[in-house]
Amino acid sequence: MKIYDFEGFPNPARVRIALKEKGLFEDVEFVAINVPGGEHRTAAFRAKNPAATVPVLELEDGTAISECTAITEYLDSRTGEPELTGKTPKERAVVAMMQRRAEAGLLDAVGAYFHHATPGLGPDIETWQCPDWGQYQRDRAVETMHYLDDVLADQDYLAGTDFSVADITAYAGLGFADFAGVTIPETCTNLMEWRTRMAERPSIAS
Amino acid sequence: MKIYDFEGFPNPARVRIALKEKGLFEDVEFVAINVPGGEHRTAAFRAKNPAATVPVLELEDGTAISECTAITEYLDSRTGEPELTGKTPKERAVVAMMQRRAEAGLLDAVGAYFHHATPGLGPDIETWQCPDWGQYQRDRAVETMHYLDDVLADQDYLAGTDFSVADITAYAGLGFADFAGVTIPETCTNLMEWRTRMAERPSIAS
Ligand SMILES: N[C@@H](CCC(=O)N[C@@H](CS)C(=O)NCC(=O)O)C(=O)O
Ligand SMILES: N[C@@H](CCC(=O)N[C@@H](CS)C(=O)NCC(=O)O)C(=O)O
Repeated sequence: MKIYDFEGFPNPARVRIALKEKGLFEDVEFVAINVPGGEHRTAAFRAKNPAATVPVLELEDGTAISECTAITEYLDSRTGEPELTGKTPKERAVVAMMQRRAEAGLLDAVGAYFHHATPGLGPDIETWQCPDWGQYQRDRAVETMHYLDDVLADQDYLAGTDFSVADITAYAGLGFADFAGVTIPETCTNLMEWRTRMAERPSIAS
Repeated sequence: MKIYDFEGFPNPARVRIALKEKGLFEDVEFVAINVPGGEHRTAAFRAKNPAATVPVLELEDGTAISECTAITEYLDSRTGEPELTGKTPKERAVVAMMQRRAEAGLLDAVGAYFHHATPGLGPDIETWQCPDWGQYQRDRAVETMHYLDDVLADQDYLAGTDFSVADITAYAGLGFADFAGVTIPETCTNLMEWRTRMAERPSIAS
């Protein structure tokens, strides 16, 4: 497998953590795409992902898979027993729901703030900005932090008793929030305690 | 199972089609939520879905599942053999990717146009609008129509040779586009031909 990405960016981080959780990291050849330099917008890269974003997973037969949810679904089903996306129908539904809440409400919301209401990746990349939208999404990200904090009052992980892709997405979202200057409210102690536990996982600490 | 929704709206339509495809429609008790009247924003409904949107699936044990992707994942895994979300790891990845492209690029983009750049559901519901964002997302929806049209030049369904949730999402997206006045470009003949075929499926025609 090949992964086209840019190390340190939040969506690439989701897939790198999932690869380590699944013991698949060493099976991947990483190809660096210079996102700050605009390489993701070239015709060559758009042929792999018309949305012009990283990461992209390329399978042995050349099939290009974009969207972290699709990539993690592949990685988790490839090894036989799902460990990140839930085992029973109900678990799978809860994981998918919490994953989507963490993605839309936190990670993508912080992304909208960063790309629309700050200089983002600079004028060559941020060719259309909508500051009002960015500010609104910043508020949404903070609201989601409060929501996730509530969820973690009663359970160890976002989808229940087990670690899942929902935790990975939220963890990457908080990393992006730090980078973009969106601070976790001080009252979100469950969320901060969960984050400390996440940071100790071998897939993240290493 | 119970489904809280509002008949005729695009996201509820996704789940109703999936239920019919799976032969599960008769197993569901539908509870109407008056979305134009704001019932989805009450504390009682937010306890089921903090995002205050329909549809919501309630399982026999009371677990509330929101997000169509999570609901369709549940329905498809519940019956044993997946028919809508892909069978092999690669198929599952392609379906998840195309589903997300149809959702973000078409259905949600039309939704952003409708809610932000038109009167939407009226002033009581549309309490914060961002017209520039709505217009931008309208353009994105049309771009996605062109993209889906290209995909359908070489294959019968959005994820390849088989019907999947990606087709359901795109079909609901085009229905929303009609309603919101976003027209399919005349050159998108593959997309229009596919739509005609979709409309003939028993899960949609009935
Ligand atoms: N929903 C996508 C998001 C991917 C994404 O936005 N990636 C960022 C890097 S973290 C990117 O490529 N941005 C390019 C740009 O903003 O032009 C996924 O799950 O992969
Ligand atoms: N991503 C959600 C979207 C749900 C959604 O936006 N539903 C619309 C009806 S089609 C809604 O409830 N809108 C309420 C509002 O706009 O206030 C899903 O997949 O279920």
